[in-house]
Amino acid sequence: MDTLTGFFDQDLYARFNGITLVETGQGTAKVSMQIRDQHRNSHGTVHGGAIFTLADTAFALASNSEGIPAAAINASITYMKAAREGHLHATAEEFAQNPKLATYTVTVTDDAGDRIALFQGMVYRKRAAR
Amino acid sequence: MDTLTGFFDQDLYARFNGITLVETGQGTAKVSMQIRDQHRNSHGTVHGGAIFTLADTAFALASNSEGIPAAAINASITYMKAAREGHLHATAEEFAQNPKLATYTVTVTDDAGDRIALFQGMVYRKRAAR
Amino acid sequence: MDTLTGFFDQDLYARFNGITLVETGQGTAKVSMQIRDQHRNSHGTVHGGAIFTLADTAFALASNSEGIPAAAINASITYMKAAREGHLHATAEEFAQNPKLATYTVTVTDDAGDRIALFQGMVYRKRAAR
Amino acid sequence: MDTLTGFFDQDLYARFNGITLVETGQGTAKVSMQIRDQHRNSHGTVHGGAIFTLADTAFALASNSEGIPAAAINASITYMKAAREGHLHATAEEFAQNPKLATYTVTVTDDAGDRIALFQGMVYRKRAAR
Repeated sequence: MDTLTGFFDQDLYARFNGITLVETGQGTAKVSMQIRDQHRNSHGTVHGGAIFTLADTAFALASNSEGIPAAAINASITYMKAAREGHLHATAEEFAQNPKLATYTVTVTDDAGDRIALFQGMVYRKRAAR
Repeated sequence: MDTLTGFFDQDLYARFNGITLVETGQGTAKVSMQIRDQHRNSHGTVHGGAIFTLADTAFALASNSEGIPAAAINASITYMKAAREGHLHATAEEFAQNPKLATYTVTVTDDAGDRIALFQGMVYRKRAAR
Repeated sequence: MDTLTGFFDQDLYARFNGITLVETGQGTAKVSMQIRDQHRNSHGTVHGGAIFTLADTAFALASNSEGIPAAAINASITYMKAAREGHLHATAEEFAQNPKLATYTVTVTDDAGDRIALFQGMVYRKRAAR
Repeated sequence: MDTLTGFFDQDLYARFNGITLVETGQGTAKVSMQIRDQHRNSHGTVHGGAIFTLADTAFALASNSEGIPAAAINASITYMKAAREGHLHATAEEFAQNPKLATYTVTVTDDAGDRIALFQGMVYRKRAAR
């Protein structure tokens, strides 16, 4: 956790976006972000890029939680509901891993617990994990 | 173009990220972003969320270029090379549309023209287009 | 369930692939497929298209389980382990829905319970659900 | 080409689906498939799994065209129009590669040239390419 906190502290873009670390575990991570005007798109709702960034930050923490440097190579996101006020929360979980690759899913919810988006990401690990 | 410029001006998150509009056309758009420290991740390269945001902004412009409000419902991104310095450029093109849905691809390149990422996104249009 | 069984019986491609219906529920479905030589790719393992087809069949059943015709508009799949022998099993679950769209995740496992692939799909529903 | 033709001949699932090789080049491939009843889903149109399989086969050929064994690790597909009669054609092109990974796009069209689906896939190469 100490190492991951340091890892998170070095994430300048997460800080720039106002993302806070809630908790991490082996292969998991949870982060949150208060919605501010700077996060809005042309329709006045939270920008898809801001939602993706929140999910991607949880993904980066979860995929680097085992001490093996992991680089994101692919991600997909599905948006189910527009977000307008309050906080957004992203929870990442490992789906599976093999020696060189690992896959994670991230669920983004609002303060009411409604599902805003589903994110799926894959990392490539420079050192074999097993 | 005037309408789209106004659309872009209302995109607070694009402005927050320092994204500039280069050009738009029917079903196309090009945007750029100078890499700043605020865009970096824990590895010191440009954050996946920042690259996605740039691509997503081009996608939003291209998909709203015909005057029909379009909401992003799905996107995927593949990262091929880490970005470190200079500018990133995103060019969106329409792949296909039907009355309610439209799909776009966005290519992200660096100043050398190297391909950094490939983005694919789908929108749902509240009014039928045809 | 009777309606969904009839829906499955009309899926000629599922039958062509040797897929069997295990169970369905509201927003969920489980199907299986015995690996045969016809499913193999040039490397001798199960073809990505066959794994996708299995997952897609579970997705179609789950997304049509509420009696509202749903058409797949988008899907992504991540492969974590090659499959060689025995059966493959695909379990679909609804992630979220709104009036016109719904998203499902499908996990593909082998007989040992190892995770072979993760699939995520979105449908467009011709009639509003709510 | 001789080597790739041999590679294609070993693809039992492509043959099972009635897929034919049209042409291949460095990082590219084109395949076709006559629509038969066996390819239909419960709605009577071509099954998403059959469209994916056609695209995936072009992707496998293109990604193995340089003589370095490549394993698919991720793919996404967007469906823009239902397919009913005639042939489907899939054309794969390389988007970018780095020493361990390569990304391809595949466009699926019908006999009228209408765009049926857009596929994007990534491979992991067991030997470094460069």
